Amino acid sequence: MQKITIIGTGNIAWHLARGIAACPKFEVVQLIGRSQEPPADFKEIDTYTNQDQVEQLLQTDIIIIAVADAAIASIAKKLENTRALVVHTSGSMPMSLLDQLPHYGVLYPLQTFTKGRPLDLRTIPFCVEASDSKNLEQVQKLASALSQNVQQMDSKKRANVHFSAVLANNFSNHLLALTAGYCDAHELSFKLLEPLLQETVSKAFNIGPTRAQTGPARRGDQETIAKQLAAIDDDQLKQTYILLTNSILRTYGKEEL
Amino acid sequence: MQKITIIGTGNIAWHLARGIAACPKFEVVQLIGRSQEPPADFKEIDTYTNQDQVEQLLQTDIIIIAVADAAIASIAKKLENTRALVVHTSGSMPMSLLDQLPHYGVLYPLQTFTKGRPLDLRTIPFCVEASDSKNLEQVQKLASALSQNVQQMDSKKRANVHFSAVLANNFSNHLLALTAGYCDAHELSFKLLEPLLQETVSKAFNIGPTRAQTGPARRGDQETIAKQLAAIDDDQLKQTYILLTNSILRTYGKEEL
Repeated sequence: MQKITIIGTGNIAWHLARGIAACPKFEVVQLIGRSQEPPADFKEIDTYTNQDQVEQLLQTDIIIIAVADAAIASIAKKLENTRALVVHTSGSMPMSLLDQLPHYGVLYPLQTFTKGRPLDLRTIPFCVEASDSKNLEQVQKLASALSQNVQQMDSKKRANVHFSAVLANNFSNHLLALTAGYCDAHELSFKLLEPLLQETVSKAFNIGPTRAQTGPARRGDQETIAKQLAAIDDDQLKQTYILLTNSILRTYGKEEL
Repeated sequence: MQKITIIGTGNIAWHLARGIAACPKFEVVQLIGRSQEPPADFKEIDTYTNQDQVEQLLQTDIIIIAVADAAIASIAKKLENTRALVVHTSGSMPMSLLDQLPHYGVLYPLQTFTKGRPLDLRTIPFCVEASDSKNLEQVQKLASALSQNVQQMDSKKRANVHFSAVLANNFSNHLLALTAGYCDAHELSFKLLEPLLQETVSKAFNIGPTRAQTGPARRGDQETIAKQLAAIDDDQLKQTYILLTNSILRTYGKEEL
């Protein structure tokens, strides 16, 4: 049984703790966080320690730092005496943040996590990296116990993956927010669009988003575009409509607005 | 058993034919299309007729016009002698396109359909409308046989629903295409992002896209935004990044770029 310590009590920490609890070969022996009292949503971990008492670290094999990017370096500084393998979970921060430690690496799960929304970790890509081959083997063992999709990559590649995730997730979600605003303004249920958006994503990954593209801009149908533009009464939506319509027109070799 | 005739051999026709074939109380007795020969992908329908021979219409209860928006009116003109209920399947065209007929209505399934990609129609919203209460009852019976989500609405509301679907589907898909381009340019597998995007959609519809919004623009984190902007080497992506980042900054009361 490999012993694991988790530092951090946020969304990633919550999901990793839950995932590790289901692995027969790993157990979380200690949770370290900023609050004085043990957080209520991590009941399955017996030992809780405030992060100012990091010297009370229980014997452990792997320490997972699952905190905000800006806090990783200062946490790592406090771990200088450990012989355990220390990994952070950030997509955009380089592994070298931990290079003052004897054993270090990265375990980055590519997903948008929310506490209390259980997810099947097995399908989630885990991007791993480590300071040497022995440490890499250990990170890979943990990642493979959690997920069927483990990807070894360096910090630069991981930062690119992270950026593509930000692009796709943040901006698609914002478009859904603009659409939800349109639905509210027109007394429509936004929920009606759920099966459509599920299929949009499924299709984009199955046949590719270029082949899956439809709509007036894809067809270069200026008449429908003009009609739709005239019907938009919200400035923010109108600007977005024009930019993305032009971007689609350009992508498919049609004349822009 | 109610008899149904389908006019059109495209994506919607294919999915409706497949769905109706699974309904015990409805059967498709005739398919009408533009090709001379019966299309190979509609084998389950016995009788195929070329649309120039619409006078050879078999006895039927409901005629579904599932053709391009611009072709609906001319098809309807050829059906002036029928006593059957005639419905079109368009989101954006008004029901009044059919008002020269004695019995008419609309059966609009809110989804992006592709031939050969089977879908569970039961979860898809079917928006229905009809010229009188008896016809409405008949359209509703058919829609309810296909789906658990039947919504009665007038043509104006349906057009708004259709536009919100276009917004969400076309533009999200285009963002995925830009992201796929970024992945190609950086030798990353776009496929890695699939679980993330499935969760993005699931979260947006469960907790709402405004609450689900994350990322540097949501936080007003100008430093990360500047770093990300500097790293984008594609003009089209850069423009889109700026516009959508500003739109998010504005939505959440942060200072724009």
